[in-house]
Amino acid sequence: MRSVIVGTGSHIPPHAVPNHHFLHHEFRGPDRKKIDKPNSEILEQFESITTIRERRYASKDQVTSDLGCDAARQALASSGIDPESLDYIVFGHNFGDVKPRSHRSDMVPALAARVKAKLKIANPRTVAVDVIFGCPGWLQGVIMCDAMIRAGDIKRAMVIGADTLSRISDPHDRDSLIYADGAGATILEARDTDAGILAHAVRSDTLEHSGMLFMGHSYNEEVFIEALFLKMEGRKLYKYALNNVAGAIKEALDRAGIGIGEVKKVLIHQANGKMDEAILDALYKLYGIDDAPHDEVMPMTISWLGNSSVATIPTMLDLIQKGKLPPHEIHSGDVVVFASVGAGMHINAVVYRAP
Amino acid sequence: MRSVIVGTGSHIPPHAVPNHHFLHHEFRGPDRKKIDKPNSEILEQFESITTIRERRYASKDQVTSDLGCDAARQALASSGIDPESLDYIVFGHNFGDVKPRSHRSDMVPALAARVKAKLKIANPRTVAVDVIFGCPGWLQGVIMCDAMIRAGDIKRAMVIGADTLSRISDPHDRDSLIYADGAGATILEARDTDAGILAHAVRSDTLEHSGMLFMGHSYNEEVFIEALFLKMEGRKLYKYALNNVAGAIKEALDRAGIGIGEVKKVLIHQANGKMDEAILDALYKLYGIDDAPHDEVMPMTISWLGNSSVATIPTMLDLIQKGKLPPHEIHSGDVVVFASVGAGMHINAVVYRAP
Repeated sequence: MRSVIVGTGSHIPPHAVPNHHFLHHEFRGPDRKKIDKPNSEILEQFESITTIRERRYASKDQVTSDLGCDAARQALASSGIDPESLDYIVFGHNFGDVKPRSHRSDMVPALAARVKAKLKIANPRTVAVDVIFGCPGWLQGVIMCDAMIRAGDIKRAMVIGADTLSRISDPHDRDSLIYADGAGATILEARDTDAGILAHAVRSDTLEHSGMLFMGHSYNEEVFIEALFLKMEGRKLYKYALNNVAGAIKEALDRAGIGIGEVKKVLIHQANGKMDEAILDALYKLYGIDDAPHDEVMPMTISWLGNSSVATIPTMLDLIQKGKLPPHEIHSGDVVVFASVGAGMHINAVVYRAP
Repeated sequence: MRSVIVGTGSHIPPHAVPNHHFLHHEFRGPDRKKIDKPNSEILEQFESITTIRERRYASKDQVTSDLGCDAARQALASSGIDPESLDYIVFGHNFGDVKPRSHRSDMVPALAARVKAKLKIANPRTVAVDVIFGCPGWLQGVIMCDAMIRAGDIKRAMVIGADTLSRISDPHDRDSLIYADGAGATILEARDTDAGILAHAVRSDTLEHSGMLFMGHSYNEEVFIEALFLKMEGRKLYKYALNNVAGAIKEALDRAGIGIGEVKKVLIHQANGKMDEAILDALYKLYGIDDAPHDEVMPMTISWLGNSSVATIPTMLDLIQKGKLPPHEIHSGDVVVFASVGAGMHINAVVYRAP
């Protein structure tokens, strides 16, 4: 028995926020001192490193579970399945629902339960549970549902990934420029097939790494006295990802018995454009290939969607499936790799063959 | 392949807070009006319904992940296994780490990753992930790890349940009197045996139930302007639990092919003493038995530990295993039922045979 993707959906928030929106922000450093550089220069540097030109922010009247619910509705529509036939709804996120300006997490009840309620699914057998695993949370939900499918416990599961990083962005921190809002959803189904999820690999590095992404105070504590914002040690993160993501992908490919030549697409978490390019280079180098086929193999959305945390991969997959990310297409028999890295630190990778 | 419990641990916080501690609190109703009744009467009524005489609160210098880590250390010690041999650490909670008086959740990185870091586990194969499922979150973690074990993905997992409900208790709400802090941890191992986890059942009811436990404002908004506290619709909750928990337990027992006569212990989530008694009565009535053997079958800790959310069942199991909850004992071959109910609303039940 294998897990096959039978539906995809996404929510792309309506508010496109270009870099020049931040021209008059007051950026400070971790030392709380104003950064001695014109904002135009800060923003140019930012774009050249991350490739981000703009990011999406959610509507003020919506929270993370609303975004997830919209993506879920689309995934259900694309699959054609009866929502009441779902055995599990798994919601990957990292901050619960955060209302605008509240700076307060709320995940009672869990976001999956909120989505199930909003979808008006009455079946008590549809179990609704959240999984917290940093940005790789959506892919981790896929991996855990795949285990339940292979164990014979369940037949159909919807895995949602959504976060509203705009709500925990420190307006005085340059790093917050990468953060975006979004949601993606994917429906898995048990099938008696050789296709579907072939293998996975996961690693959690916490000894020296668990503090690389954390909740901390604003760099302007005169304005934000108690609120907590997402903070990161960008350089260490970059190095960690570059040293470890390619190896995890190769481990999953080895377990699947698949060589790099057979891989048609690599969907990597959209955290930083240049970083993803370097990761792909590192992956191909593990196979002795110096020129990784970036444009052909690796779809990218970060330049216009930013880093929407758990949402980046399922959103990208949905855009490809709906023909909205040309020239990328996924055909029957294609091998697709999913890989993510984020707070924990965690890395996971899944090797999938399209049915 | 079956999942067997090979280690247990718990953290019982040091501060015992008796009911009379609340004699001078100002209790208000959902209408924000002062309750027109002397506190001594409120507290007597509270004790007669819930059986709670006192509850435990964590030390001010500790957060939920610290409590979970202490329970984890004890579970590892009792199992004798090498911590580096764990394939998964799953942490069930509902509020992340909340510092005293901060009223702010923090789960970046996930609490499982914090525990792994504190335990100094270096093995990157030890995956650290959080599961959010209301009070049944620890048991849900057990169910999901059991699936990964039966799927052949993993061999050893530690499942932790911890929350600090004192940190999200509204001092002006009588319902907050049931809330307590605590942590429990359990280690599961794959064994080629007929014992271990035999079956489970889960249900999520969200249509009319997802708002029965929620985060809301204090009943005294002049003092707590923006902070969010755990709120509940107690009567509806009671009715929901009474109508549905027994059925879920029977469903799991039926799947395991086990009759009620073979059940030696029923460990039910400690939310309310009288409610648990009524649930046990309802369970035995499903088998045509009018007198449920309360004292013999159902260990209780709520009178002195309060409702510590995800922690109640693994704490109770640990106390029994360590001989600290006489006369309750679990012997080889005994059938033990675990059952929980909480925010979502969710109910789950596991049937286990001690190896």
